[in-house]
Amino acid sequence: MAKQKVSPVSVDGAGFLTHVAYDSVVFGFSEGQLKILLMEYHNTGLIALPGGFIRTDEDLDEAVRLGLEDRTGITNIYLEQFHTFGNKSRHKPEILQKILEANGIHAPKEHWMLQRFISVAYYALVDISTVSLQPDALSDSCTWYEINRLPKLILDHATVIEKALKTLRFNLDNKIKDSNLLPEKFTMKDLQKVYEAILGEELRRTSFQRKMLAGRILKRHDKLYSGEAHKAPFIYSFHK
Amino acid sequence: MAKQKVSPVSVDGAGFLTHVAYDSVVFGFSEGQLKILLMEYHNTGLIALPGGFIRTDEDLDEAVRLGLEDRTGITNIYLEQFHTFGNKSRHKPEILQKILEANGIHAPKEHWMLQRFISVAYYALVDISTVSLQPDALSDSCTWYEINRLPKLILDHATVIEKALKTLRFNLDNKIKDSNLLPEKFTMKDLQKVYEAILGEELRRTSFQRKMLAGRILKRHDKLYSGEAHKAPFIYSFHK
Repeated sequence: MAKQKVSPVSVDGAGFLTHVAYDSVVFGFSEGQLKILLMEYHNTGLIALPGGFIRTDEDLDEAVRLGLEDRTGITNIYLEQFHTFGNKSRHKPEILQKILEANGIHAPKEHWMLQRFISVAYYALVDISTVSLQPDALSDSCTWYEINRLPKLILDHATVIEKALKTLRFNLDNKIKDSNLLPEKFTMKDLQKVYEAILGEELRRTSFQRKMLAGRILKRHDKLYSGEAHKAPFIYSFHK
Repeated sequence: MAKQKVSPVSVDGAGFLTHVAYDSVVFGFSEGQLKILLMEYHNTGLIALPGGFIRTDEDLDEAVRLGLEDRTGITNIYLEQFHTFGNKSRHKPEILQKILEANGIHAPKEHWMLQRFISVAYYALVDISTVSLQPDALSDSCTWYEINRLPKLILDHATVIEKALKTLRFNLDNKIKDSNLLPEKFTMKDLQKVYEAILGEELRRTSFQRKMLAGRILKRHDKLYSGEAHKAPFIYSFHK
């Protein structure tokens, strides 16, 4: 049951927590690349993180989860809150005005969506092959962009992504362990590819393996029998 | 220049970001104990974390810093944002009503301070001996409480403290390094006392020392000459 998150509501924002918004940074992993999900607004050329507002009868976390579902079609992913952005310099009413205008909404200056917002930011880490995208009514597209080839984004969204990436890279072992980026069982090489994509650098195989095994987060299983057992790699899973 | 943060403002909250508040968890260390700063509101028996609201012309971080200064007298401490609390269950207008009433403010039901707030929470880590407390006009007291002997608190403030403590205990090495809990030079024993107070458990001297030296955050200096050089402890500082 999708709720329409951004709609031509009353000027005073009745039913919403005015001055509060959220943004979601969804990191995806495919073909050895780290990517981010971005949306383009109809007829504006404006590209942004999927975001939205909070209804007065919703928990913040719930609003973010449902909002991402409405805007992108992605369901059931775990989003982790990482920072709230509250500088007054991020107030740029002309951007929101442009988006509303392009959707046929003529908002007066005192409209709540044109006031200053703080934005609570969340991130998630998903396996791109397991999600299907479905942009909402306000957007032309909802697409994965490689982290090294991001387009120009509205407001402070580039800063939001930078902070999300910094948070993700910090204490990465536990985050990858808790994500669903890898199947239940995987090889050391699979694991190394994930780390390299997120850290944005190549790692030495031997020292990566040593570090991973020392971290005690991995459980080693029997080699997969392939007829050439001496060449088959060990299979691992994460300790629960 | 103290700004009055909570004052009988207009019912619609003009000049403030309605629906947004902040709370600050100030951890203090003295006599081997970890403590938290709490305030008691006049004639209510209500005890709370120092918190407040954000003016439309202030950055969020600035509002929190100035707000803490106004409410407690503590100046120039570095506050780190750690979580934004946004569950709808935290909306308890009767508590705010009671605080306002006790200060002679009769707020109608639609008053902005009686609406639902999300609260952006910050923490700081200070050396108690370096701060002097000065409660604001709304409060009877502003006092350090031992972490193991906290009184009953309003709203979800106990949860806020629990989360702050969890954040503080995570990646503690860097946090202690960046705090001003210790003088520039200290002994291994001084350092161990700080860790023990924060973690809430006694640590074995030998394994603590081994772990600290392995972490490469410490720089060892010459022993302080005391006439009994063989007994004098090594002196350390943090690598910058």
